[in-house]
Amino acid sequence: MLHIDHDSKKPIYQQIYEQVKQDILSGNLPIGIRLTSTRALARELQIGRNTVENAYAQLVLEGYITNVASSGYVVNNLQFNLNQKARARSTISEAAAVTANCGTENIRYNFRYGNLDAASFPDKLWRKYLTDVLAGPEAQEVHSDGDVKGDIELRSQLLEYLYHSRGVNCKPEQIIICSGTQAALEIIIKIFPYVEKKVAMEEPCYNGASVIFRSNGFKILPISVCEDGIELNELATSSARMVHIAPSHQFPMGSVMPIHKRIEILNWARQHDTIIIEDDYDSEFRYNGRPIPSLQSIDQDERVVYVGTFSKALSPGLRMAYMILPTWLLTAYQKRFTGYQCTVPLLEQKILARFMADGHWEKHVRKICLSQKKKHDILISAIKQTMGNKVRIYGHQAGLHILLEFLDGQQEDELLRKARECSVKVYPVSPFWLNKQNYKHHALVLGYGMMPEKDIPRAVEILSRAWFD
Amino acid sequence: MLHIDHDSKKPIYQQIYEQVKQDILSGNLPIGIRLTSTRALARELQIGRNTVENAYAQLVLEGYITNVASSGYVVNNLQFNLNQKARARSTISEAAAVTANCGTENIRYNFRYGNLDAASFPDKLWRKYLTDVLAGPEAQEVHSDGDVKGDIELRSQLLEYLYHSRGVNCKPEQIIICSGTQAALEIIIKIFPYVEKKVAMEEPCYNGASVIFRSNGFKILPISVCEDGIELNELATSSARMVHIAPSHQFPMGSVMPIHKRIEILNWARQHDTIIIEDDYDSEFRYNGRPIPSLQSIDQDERVVYVGTFSKALSPGLRMAYMILPTWLLTAYQKRFTGYQCTVPLLEQKILARFMADGHWEKHVRKICLSQKKKHDILISAIKQTMGNKVRIYGHQAGLHILLEFLDGQQEDELLRKARECSVKVYPVSPFWLNKQNYKHHALVLGYGMMPEKDIPRAVEILSRAWFD
Repeated sequence: MLHIDHDSKKPIYQQIYEQVKQDILSGNLPIGIRLTSTRALARELQIGRNTVENAYAQLVLEGYITNVASSGYVVNNLQFNLNQKARARSTISEAAAVTANCGTENIRYNFRYGNLDAASFPDKLWRKYLTDVLAGPEAQEVHSDGDVKGDIELRSQLLEYLYHSRGVNCKPEQIIICSGTQAALEIIIKIFPYVEKKVAMEEPCYNGASVIFRSNGFKILPISVCEDGIELNELATSSARMVHIAPSHQFPMGSVMPIHKRIEILNWARQHDTIIIEDDYDSEFRYNGRPIPSLQSIDQDERVVYVGTFSKALSPGLRMAYMILPTWLLTAYQKRFTGYQCTVPLLEQKILARFMADGHWEKHVRKICLSQKKKHDILISAIKQTMGNKVRIYGHQAGLHILLEFLDGQQEDELLRKARECSVKVYPVSPFWLNKQNYKHHALVLGYGMMPEKDIPRAVEILSRAWFD
Repeated sequence: MLHIDHDSKKPIYQQIYEQVKQDILSGNLPIGIRLTSTRALARELQIGRNTVENAYAQLVLEGYITNVASSGYVVNNLQFNLNQKARARSTISEAAAVTANCGTENIRYNFRYGNLDAASFPDKLWRKYLTDVLAGPEAQEVHSDGDVKGDIELRSQLLEYLYHSRGVNCKPEQIIICSGTQAALEIIIKIFPYVEKKVAMEEPCYNGASVIFRSNGFKILPISVCEDGIELNELATSSARMVHIAPSHQFPMGSVMPIHKRIEILNWARQHDTIIIEDDYDSEFRYNGRPIPSLQSIDQDERVVYVGTFSKALSPGLRMAYMILPTWLLTAYQKRFTGYQCTVPLLEQKILARFMADGHWEKHVRKICLSQKKKHDILISAIKQTMGNKVRIYGHQAGLHILLEFLDGQQEDELLRKARECSVKVYPVSPFWLNKQNYKHHALVLGYGMMPEKDIPRAVEILSRAWFD
């Protein structure tokens, strides 16, 4: 028996469709039975015949009934007694509860590493270029998949920028725009012709990189890091044919690889037919001089895959990075990724390309570098003043974080707990160690990219008291 | 001999740095030699001593020189005679030439498939929500990596929408936001516990999907498609443990799988411990009734991985899709992707979440569905009028394309050429065939998403004359 609710927002044809479907699924309307004709049902329900026809047409389309010539609409044999799935359905409020559970603790000062404060993002220009792109001559193009390597305009802008700022020398076809550094590594893994799945990495290193190799079944060979970067003797005696390093600002230790060592590692790569993945993740931030030219810029033998990102200087929320492949890997790239689509939104790429073309990127980098230097200086001086020789500072004069080593033997857990008790969040170094048992647990990472300048002295003072009083 | 150009834009310390470095690299300043002291050089060049110190500091940092107590700055042993790389550098103009080469031919009417016209994109609301998100309470959160599965707000909105529109029933933790359908498939491939790398696919099928399996070393088993979707007998005799289908609008044929066949394929999946990847790529566009409920909605045994996209109804330029994993695959997902970052920009996700929360998504879908239906109707009627029974139309009443079969035996190449000669672009079907030798080459794909309504009759008329006069 069909019931029509004329007050319902649901269209009448849909009410009919749903009820008849339910009757078929529950067996109330058995196989082979003839439905009331559209004319009769329309009369019975006092509605237009068209409405009933629409409902029946949908049921035909979905295969519940068939329009049999001369006998009208007949229920099909569905072969199975199917009760439409009635799993407990999640509601938005449940989802909200999930969110709430991941909520942040009570944090007054957060030395989070990896992103800038929201105020550093060029909101106004981003909006302006969004408007321009959506209304401009590229309005149609922007609604397409685009080139798998990324927008050619953006790649051209990057090419100019990287040449001037990092000495990077390449052709536009070597640049690939990716959804973050991890996505770049995934691509490299797919195209490098390795014999064995082995990679040498710095110990400690960025865990966002090591996870990619590990998840792809690589054996990771940890190589010690000293004051001037990765230990070359250790690397040379390893059997790795691929090494991942951050020579211009090792993460998290902050060491810088000097020129003679850069030459040596390039030489090693040539002798052993190896590639070097150069992770140049925060090269924009150097506070005592020019950025150090990249390894790629002095690589005469195409041994370096250069990886950079917009996460640090713009926003990790953009998920945009880039890499520069050696030309000899381009054929393998082409072979592997023909038919693939770029994973970075073309809309974002076009916005960024215009932002760069108009000179805003370089201005932006200068500006945030200045403001971060100020914060860096305040942090260093506050630490020196309050903690003096109880700690040793690593990796300053660059980047968006420092590493703090505790000379009095305090352990990571204890240090984190003490900070947390004062509502200050600092970060452990242990996640960056490949072999955690080699790690002595006497250090912490403090990022200052997100922290307001004025909060730094107070936050350091609180930490100093918590740790040393 | 150092030369300072006071008119140059280049800072003086940088001029010194560069010249000294060049002298070291070229061997003019040999290993072990002592540089002129900062004081003497400052006097000689009539500049501040500080400027010289900055230049030397940079050279120390990069490892070219060392400050040796009592003997001043000494040139390091770089071990190799390194001439800084001087490869031919690409310029932006070269890049522009690359762009020009990929330029479009002279096309008056383009039946491109896969995207809408720029006018369909909700520019104004997108800008509004960008502004809101950047200035709102999430301003800081948006500049972070976010949850690897995607923003929980967006996932909650999707959950509601998919429940109402597609009958999809799941928990928020089963939804994963991905950078396009291809990215979704890459994830599935990484977590499904297959014994053999084999997948059954419809013949013909979307080549953007088959390329992912092929590139990942899968053997693809092509299964014929008939008027009601994939041939189940063929599928049953194949050895596949994974099948990829588009049951609600097969691509490119446009067939719809009726309910009894949906039940059969679910049953097959249960009996053979198989998963079904349901690609629901254009479900928003149905022109004669409600969208057909998804396979996922009647799957009682968690055999279906549901994949949907925002490419069709919003823009492929957003690179945003989503998938719904069965709960039993969540542990494998967790294991494989812990430590990974979401590849979809959080900024975009937040914009879309708000757009949906305020009800604009459903309004938008209704609106574009209406406007596409109008174009669809005009196209169908124009074809029927001009080409009559010389062609057969497949896959109408849904989606953003039709397939046109030529009953007079004309071949794809010839048809494409004739269209091109009249500056009309239509698209071949052959790229969608897995075994191209099985294909008879008598059909074309015509997309109308991008074509203005008013152009359709004229474009069809030109085509009809080109093909049949």
